[in-house]
Amino acid sequence: MKLVIGNKNYSSWSLRAWLFLSWHELEFEEIRVPLYQPGSREQLLGFSAAGQVPVLLDEDLLVWDSLAICEYVSEQYLDNRGWPRSRAMRAEARSVSAEMHAGFHAIRNRLPMNARASGRHVGLDQELQAEIQRLQSLWQDLRSRHGSLGPWLFGKFSIADCFYAPMAFRFPAYGVTLTGAAADYLSLLREQPLMQNWLEAARQEQEVITFAETGIDSQPQS
Amino acid sequence: MKLVIGNKNYSSWSLRAWLFLSWHELEFEEIRVPLYQPGSREQLLGFSAAGQVPVLLDEDLLVWDSLAICEYVSEQYLDNRGWPRSRAMRAEARSVSAEMHAGFHAIRNRLPMNARASGRHVGLDQELQAEIQRLQSLWQDLRSRHGSLGPWLFGKFSIADCFYAPMAFRFPAYGVTLTGAAADYLSLLREQPLMQNWLEAARQEQEVITFAETGIDSQPQS
Repeated sequence: MKLVIGNKNYSSWSLRAWLFLSWHELEFEEIRVPLYQPGSREQLLGFSAAGQVPVLLDEDLLVWDSLAICEYVSEQYLDNRGWPRSRAMRAEARSVSAEMHAGFHAIRNRLPMNARASGRHVGLDQELQAEIQRLQSLWQDLRSRHGSLGPWLFGKFSIADCFYAPMAFRFPAYGVTLTGAAADYLSLLREQPLMQNWLEAARQEQEVITFAETGIDSQPQS
Repeated sequence: MKLVIGNKNYSSWSLRAWLFLSWHELEFEEIRVPLYQPGSREQLLGFSAAGQVPVLLDEDLLVWDSLAICEYVSEQYLDNRGWPRSRAMRAEARSVSAEMHAGFHAIRNRLPMNARASGRHVGLDQELQAEIQRLQSLWQDLRSRHGSLGPWLFGKFSIADCFYAPMAFRFPAYGVTLTGAAADYLSLLREQPLMQNWLEAARQEQEVITFAETGIDSQPQS
């Protein structure tokens, strides 16, 4: 398999798919296309007409969205271990992942991922505060109900954890703090060797993208 | 099952889940919560902490996103007939659905669904034109490759068709025209008895929502 990703420093959607494949130790080649550089749009369109990252190439098969990639890989290579085994938990994990996939617009637009950044300050308006509060209570609730099964949102590591993983870079960069089980979960995400590996690679990248000009976190990723 | 939906005139995400359940003749009770009315936010939060429509209640199980609802119902009640049987087509159908679920922001924000409207005029800026062109070429390509299997995006009716169904109300309302196979597909969607049934119900609704104030099409639905 080949996984086309954007800049590791900026591309939160790339991280989601990359983390899922990497966690399960599936072999894949990384193809990095730095976003918003001259020619990068044309390069992305060469992989997929949607022009977004991430894109998975598996022989002649093309999958061009983070959630579709995780569903495909879970089904094809993991006997569906990407999701919880229990019917009820699987439905909940898909809801939680889809909520991130289509939502949290304020966090995605106003706290764009910049993995290597720290000490950033952004005014937390009402919409942003409401979304952060939703995350705080969602994580706390999931950890409280499924904690006996393991340390992840649904006990065992699942696609839902991949979907929230970029928060482990975003919140510390912008000084957003959570409390209790939600704070513990954020730390757990951040300290994973795979997340540290991604962060180290982000630090090595040279490109600098100005968010205001690009709206990078909502386009061209999904 | 109970399906919590918003106004039929405005709630495109409700339509997606409703169409999928209705197409497969699954029994469910409709619970309509008109959006942006006094008390409606509280009412939605009573169903799901995400505060969005649609929400599916299946005994003690809660599924709160359109895509998660379709995945759940397909798995639980349809032996996965919501998606194409072929591995490659299923991966493609999930990509296409996820692209809609997380994307097409210009269409969703600037051509909000208003099922009963007609003769609306909106300036088509570059971003909007690019998204309409993407839909035109995506539908045309899918119809050309899978047309021998049936008239839908992947031959047989699938979740992907539900995800694009609201375009059949949007495009005519704003005078957006497609060509060739994409135009035929739009007509096919619109003339479905279920779509006409939804439209008739939308025409009976009394609430009027001003889009500019609410950004209704991106919030609080997903």
